[in-house]
Amino acid sequence: MKHNDDPEKSRVSDAGAGETSADPARKIDRRHFLASGASLIALGSASFLSAKAFADQSSSDPMLVPGSPARVYGERSPFESAARSVGDFHSLTPLQDLHGIITPSSLHFERHHNGVPAIEPSRHRVLVHGLVARPLFFTVDDLQRFPSVSRLVFIECAGNSRNGWGIAEDRTVQDMHGLTSTSEWTGVKLATLLDVAGLKPEGSWILAEGADAAALTRSVPLTDEVLSEAMVCYAQNGEALRPEQGYPVRLVLPGFEGNINVKWLRRLKVGSSPFMTRWETAKYTDLMPDGTAYQFSLVMEAKSVITSPSGGQQMRPGFQEIRGLAWSGRGRVVGVEVTVDGGRTWHRAELQEPVLSKCHTRFRMAWTWNGEETILQSRCVDQTGYRQPSRAALIKVRGIHSNYHYNAIQSWKIERDGRVSNLHA
Amino acid sequence: MKHNDDPEKSRVSDAGAGETSADPARKIDRRHFLASGASLIALGSASFLSAKAFADQSSSDPMLVPGSPARVYGERSPFESAARSVGDFHSLTPLQDLHGIITPSSLHFERHHNGVPAIEPSRHRVLVHGLVARPLFFTVDDLQRFPSVSRLVFIECAGNSRNGWGIAEDRTVQDMHGLTSTSEWTGVKLATLLDVAGLKPEGSWILAEGADAAALTRSVPLTDEVLSEAMVCYAQNGEALRPEQGYPVRLVLPGFEGNINVKWLRRLKVGSSPFMTRWETAKYTDLMPDGTAYQFSLVMEAKSVITSPSGGQQMRPGFQEIRGLAWSGRGRVVGVEVTVDGGRTWHRAELQEPVLSKCHTRFRMAWTWNGEETILQSRCVDQTGYRQPSRAALIKVRGIHSNYHYNAIQSWKIERDGRVSNLHA
Repeated sequence: MKHNDDPEKSRVSDAGAGETSADPARKIDRRHFLASGASLIALGSASFLSAKAFADQSSSDPMLVPGSPARVYGERSPFESAARSVGDFHSLTPLQDLHGIITPSSLHFERHHNGVPAIEPSRHRVLVHGLVARPLFFTVDDLQRFPSVSRLVFIECAGNSRNGWGIAEDRTVQDMHGLTSTSEWTGVKLATLLDVAGLKPEGSWILAEGADAAALTRSVPLTDEVLSEAMVCYAQNGEALRPEQGYPVRLVLPGFEGNINVKWLRRLKVGSSPFMTRWETAKYTDLMPDGTAYQFSLVMEAKSVITSPSGGQQMRPGFQEIRGLAWSGRGRVVGVEVTVDGGRTWHRAELQEPVLSKCHTRFRMAWTWNGEETILQSRCVDQTGYRQPSRAALIKVRGIHSNYHYNAIQSWKIERDGRVSNLHA
Repeated sequence: MKHNDDPEKSRVSDAGAGETSADPARKIDRRHFLASGASLIALGSASFLSAKAFADQSSSDPMLVPGSPARVYGERSPFESAARSVGDFHSLTPLQDLHGIITPSSLHFERHHNGVPAIEPSRHRVLVHGLVARPLFFTVDDLQRFPSVSRLVFIECAGNSRNGWGIAEDRTVQDMHGLTSTSEWTGVKLATLLDVAGLKPEGSWILAEGADAAALTRSVPLTDEVLSEAMVCYAQNGEALRPEQGYPVRLVLPGFEGNINVKWLRRLKVGSSPFMTRWETAKYTDLMPDGTAYQFSLVMEAKSVITSPSGGQQMRPGFQEIRGLAWSGRGRVVGVEVTVDGGRTWHRAELQEPVLSKCHTRFRMAWTWNGEETILQSRCVDQTGYRQPSRAALIKVRGIHSNYHYNAIQSWKIERDGRVSNLHA
């Protein structure tokens, strides 16, 4: 494509961000930004009055030709390229490219253990058996006829941020933390299906099994919280689940590690104790400093991360809106604190409403970067009062040999040349 | 594809919906449903114990072959076919197929007046001029560097539900009401851009112009509400706007008719009176019974519609969850009332949290259909106390010669054979 060589461009590009401040670490708020905005724009009124320069941006001006017709199912612009980064059996959400709290389904992270199965929904069944009065199975149509529930919920892989345990230079926020995403999930409550099947009093755990080639199995404790919140879902962000998210049916356990939100759900067997599957014995346990393993650490604790500025980005001095995401498997985020001086002072970030339990929360803070080297961090406080720990505090308790449940504060170092990089501060 | 001829299927398919009630119009609540569920399932425990029938659903069992690898940008399952219905310059959201409140961007309704332009974002500019101290234009990058805001908002075409004015047999909910959708929109506040440009005291209206081949223009009043809520948006549901939604920049005016949410936004000219464009004189005015036209009726009043059961669907007797959407351009939905007997008695539907201002709200009500002919209706009450009118009440005030702003109660007639059809009750 021919690039626009309009000589106005470089000046115009500074219109929203042209402040340079003499005060090294001055934090500006939105009011200040707006009040001072008037003086920041070094753009004369003559510069836009060339009608030709404005209208003739291109020899193929889209205003001079009829556009495309309506389509039955839309696609994004060919000029957009935000992408999951892909491994053998996973892909990571590009958090640095996203806005708001919804993750587009096409960019929701993936994790699977033997690929994404191609399931024809009319052939799929969900079996409920074990310690129930009436073993049953359900078609997808059956599930959709039950009383339904929708909820915006984050799902985070237990292994998200695992690079934090070791050396992790030159990592982006996507590399470090891209195994978390938020969707609006719709389905039937697990409790409804158990009620219909007749849960026996001694039933206290469920084995959930997926219909992928890994036949992934996990044990779900039937706590009050699970019985009130767990959903057997068939829809995501308004439409059917995406294949890599468990089409046609997945379990969603708000706040619990991703792996137990079993995808391609085919079986729920009620028992009276955990089933001790490979995925909760050999994997998805936390190796502690004394050599023992902590099992069934299912809840994802409070975490936050600044998504902009973040690793790999290039900054220029002046006004910045620091943006990020915070979340907690324990409930609502009640605050996010941000430092722009490596932890000497902390400021309260603004939380975007609605702030929902067990859902990504967008936070923002206005800031003016003076061009000096510094370190940015954020820390999340959730409704239990828990505050996201420093890396040192986390390692003191957990050691460095775990693969899972890393939730320490993320540090981004800003160099004088504007380069942003991951730092284990 | 070979279909599953499992003899259990027909019985199993009734598992979630098998109730037949002797009481003709009995409304059951969720508790009743769950309590009685146990007796509804005529499925012996022997029926699922054929392991062969369960596992060998297919000669190409997806559990027996490795699945597909991760992908950079996901797509929906090839078994899914929910689609916008398409006209020359519009498409309608398939409300009957959707769940929750988010409309997937690929299914958000479209309306354009000369097709969807193909805009290269690096060449696009938004000009702010007229009654401002500093005329400016902004690149998309500029806009993204300003303080940002995200919000879940419905956008509804002024012409949505226009079939209600005339004869509308055999219409589906998509045909009748599919010109409304909800997304999470992200952008910069209009007020921020006006602040930077220096809005003059006499500036009270803005001309907003699109960069499509129709060069669509609308006049926006600079009320307190507009200054506090209007957004110049670059993102939808987490990623860049879709082309048919105004890529790369659109105006979002929460609660206002779709047409004024100008897409492919290229120009904002501040004036001291409305600009009287074609789209607010020849079109998008309301022809009243006395032959005068009501102009600048921008707010979309409270409306609701039952999406299931709805026109064209086929019901069977027994348990149903009545599902629908309600919304108001005046703020929050505070209640939705549902009748299952053509308006003799009304019941309060359950509203799915979160209930957000100027956003679709999902409502649900459990019901048992006894197989007799009846009429279903819903009516929305918003935070101003306004209650969605009957068709007769609306026509009494507005006549039948308007094309826009039809918000009367929708009636679905259920025949004894289970067929559901549109009715002007």
